[in-house]
Amino acid sequence: MKEAISDIVWELGNQKDIISTDPDDLHAHGYSSWSTVNPDELPVAVAYPRNTEQVATIVRVCHRHRVPVVAYSGGTSLEGNFSAPYGGVSIDFAFMNNILQVNKADMDVVVQPSVGWQDLNTELAKQGTGLFFPVDPGPTAKIGGMIGTNCSGTNAVRYGTMKDWVINLTVVLSDGQVIKTRRRPRKSSAGYNLNSLFVGSEGTLGIVTEATLKLAVVPEETSVAVVNFPSIRHAASAAASVMQAAIPVQCLEIMDEVQMKVVNLSGFTAPRVWVEKPTLFFKFAGTKASVQEHIKLVEKITAANKGGNFEFAKDEKEQKLLWSARKESLWSMLALRKEGEDVWSTDVAVPFSRLADIIEVSKKEMDELGLFASILGHIGDGNFHESIMYNKENEAERAKVEACVKNMVRLAIEMEGTCTGEHGVGWGKKESLLWEVGSETVGVMAAIKKSLDPHWILNPGKIMDVPWERKDSHHDG
Amino acid sequence: MKEAISDIVWELGNQKDIISTDPDDLHAHGYSSWSTVNPDELPVAVAYPRNTEQVATIVRVCHRHRVPVVAYSGGTSLEGNFSAPYGGVSIDFAFMNNILQVNKADMDVVVQPSVGWQDLNTELAKQGTGLFFPVDPGPTAKIGGMIGTNCSGTNAVRYGTMKDWVINLTVVLSDGQVIKTRRRPRKSSAGYNLNSLFVGSEGTLGIVTEATLKLAVVPEETSVAVVNFPSIRHAASAAASVMQAAIPVQCLEIMDEVQMKVVNLSGFTAPRVWVEKPTLFFKFAGTKASVQEHIKLVEKITAANKGGNFEFAKDEKEQKLLWSARKESLWSMLALRKEGEDVWSTDVAVPFSRLADIIEVSKKEMDELGLFASILGHIGDGNFHESIMYNKENEAERAKVEACVKNMVRLAIEMEGTCTGEHGVGWGKKESLLWEVGSETVGVMAAIKKSLDPHWILNPGKIMDVPWERKDSHHDG
Repeated sequence: MKEAISDIVWELGNQKDIISTDPDDLHAHGYSSWSTVNPDELPVAVAYPRNTEQVATIVRVCHRHRVPVVAYSGGTSLEGNFSAPYGGVSIDFAFMNNILQVNKADMDVVVQPSVGWQDLNTELAKQGTGLFFPVDPGPTAKIGGMIGTNCSGTNAVRYGTMKDWVINLTVVLSDGQVIKTRRRPRKSSAGYNLNSLFVGSEGTLGIVTEATLKLAVVPEETSVAVVNFPSIRHAASAAASVMQAAIPVQCLEIMDEVQMKVVNLSGFTAPRVWVEKPTLFFKFAGTKASVQEHIKLVEKITAANKGGNFEFAKDEKEQKLLWSARKESLWSMLALRKEGEDVWSTDVAVPFSRLADIIEVSKKEMDELGLFASILGHIGDGNFHESIMYNKENEAERAKVEACVKNMVRLAIEMEGTCTGEHGVGWGKKESLLWEVGSETVGVMAAIKKSLDPHWILNPGKIMDVPWERKDSHHDG
Repeated sequence: MKEAISDIVWELGNQKDIISTDPDDLHAHGYSSWSTVNPDELPVAVAYPRNTEQVATIVRVCHRHRVPVVAYSGGTSLEGNFSAPYGGVSIDFAFMNNILQVNKADMDVVVQPSVGWQDLNTELAKQGTGLFFPVDPGPTAKIGGMIGTNCSGTNAVRYGTMKDWVINLTVVLSDGQVIKTRRRPRKSSAGYNLNSLFVGSEGTLGIVTEATLKLAVVPEETSVAVVNFPSIRHAASAAASVMQAAIPVQCLEIMDEVQMKVVNLSGFTAPRVWVEKPTLFFKFAGTKASVQEHIKLVEKITAANKGGNFEFAKDEKEQKLLWSARKESLWSMLALRKEGEDVWSTDVAVPFSRLADIIEVSKKEMDELGLFASILGHIGDGNFHESIMYNKENEAERAKVEACVKNMVRLAIEMEGTCTGEHGVGWGKKESLLWEVGSETVGVMAAIKKSLDPHWILNPGKIMDVPWERKDSHHDG
């Protein structure tokens, strides 16, 4: 691996700040405090390329030396997606953070991997485009990682997930060859859909260095409201009715009583104190008239499901605070940790009709742990998150939490759901993916992986086991 | 190939009506009168399986004998997508036309490949589900082929394309192995997105035998209107403004003056006679109030672009007639053919801002042919269709039309568009795909193809050339 590093430095003309082997840097690129899992290994170097050609050079050298390459942008993933279990070079796109084109008339934008989605939206507003990028995962997520995990967020119920917003990708393949998946049409049936293959492949099939993304029009009017319910089941039932009535809410989120307490404790929306009951968060968006109409329709539905009165954010500022209380909920929970505590955060998704069932069972099992644990989720997509605070150093406690989480994943799969709605498989959920789709379907994924990365250098050990470890593992089953 | 056929008959227990070698049947499954191209070969047999297991058996036998397998459902594709240039067995799903599950609460449905999208919607209405399947290509298209080409239609501007509605697929792989891509979550980030890989792969990576599809809620109110404009450019400009104002129309279609004449000639909406000028068709859908609001907003925009007054369909019956006039436009044109005439119908898509440019140039070039030729399209997606009536037997005329069409495709690609927005590549647009994405990107597709179908038996010669013909062809460039 050392040879590969000196080759990279040599081939890039010994430019400054391209390669770091600083121990803190290696740790920051191989370990994440909010990830559920962290392998013991770290990358041996972090590369900081400035353009696609440099990325291609780095990958070409690593290919020659059979050294792993792992892409890194925001570093906010939760399943060890950017960890380096087989060492190798972490490519940090920190310096590839430019918005390259804003095509207002075509409603699209060309960006580099380290553009943050919030920064992108700030810039689009500043330029007065009237457009925004609607995929909204964790606040500090960046486009590269968002593509890697096919992320989504609270807007997904209206706007879909990352794969729905990609027009084309520039990709460095495992041997350093650079391809572009498409030109710039908003719609195409020309050949295999490589966009959707690379999106969600967690950097295991190629390294994305540029993306053209669709944009949406900023709605004329937005309104945010919360309604509390006597039980999760009442809340879930109200949410189902809103979906089945096809009321085009922008967001439809659920937070349990524990998570509402976290919001109050965080002080984000002080002096406002929220009722600590299962709660639905609604975001309404559209023309002024349609927002009013949707609110009326939703109020009728929630009232029929024993929902309390709507509490509206009183102005734009409170709207933002309230929504950020929702968006920052994981961070709020992390902020409440005491010395030595960690948060295990995971997500699953089930068919809509099973959501109340799985949340009820999961809450009961979490309560039996006797730990601080909460549930929140994108209920309009059947997707929810479980966060459990625990002591990582306490082996028994860790085992108990892991068993509880795996149980929830199994339950989701039994209910015809998925082991992850938006976080991805990474290093942490490979076994769950096998439970979910079976070894034959993972075998198809492995065949595709092998065809594009025969030496298995691109983010090895993620989504599926590396072939040399698979022989004597569960994959035989 | 004969051995393969007798093996299939033997392995399926000599059941009746499983295999046909009737010459008319072979012709119907290898030749299409509305396809732009037809290779000389025909399939040597047509298989009529009743279930996934039988499909698996057929494919396994063909795999053993290295015999091509081509999937067939509605047979409405336009680029020779189901033709059999290397002979082999055509699998006709005629007897696999059942709706297997309607999951109303989950808003999804499980279907076999030969369910027609119109029949599906009739059944969903009959069961009073309040749901519908919104992807609307040619009226007689069936789910299997719709998956194959990643089709779309007039609803795509609001509801997206086929790939956006697939929850899972049951797929028979090239060796007869059966996999399921996912369970039944509406959203997932678990592993590679095999749904979107198989959707649009035209049966070259696997044979889809079952699909779970999302459904949408039937809007409370629908309204259909047409507005004519002094020029295509005025119409395109109005359409752009509607999109940029984010008015959520259900459909936004353009038809040129020739196509409006075809509607009048077809008599579909008689006694109503439409003005024969470039025309926008709008479908509005939503709550009663929002439909009224959207109509007002759109009226203002069209008026500002010199649009004539809105002409509304006067009742539901006329709405249906008017919309079917649009949907049946290709068929209307085919119906106008005189003895010996054919219609060359093709589609491209470009970034929104280039649509007026390409339509203007293409119309001028079509007019210079001196043939009956029209343009219509899904203008909200930057996607349009060109239909030219010509005499196939007249070699000079055919060459002239082909050159004109290829020129339009080249122009679309130069404008950063795609050679096909919704019809697929098939046998007819392989060269265009190479122009569009380049041989490196087609090379990635070929690597994936090879990993899943090493003997190249699944619909060979579609999307990309077969490897044994590629050596001495344009692929070298």
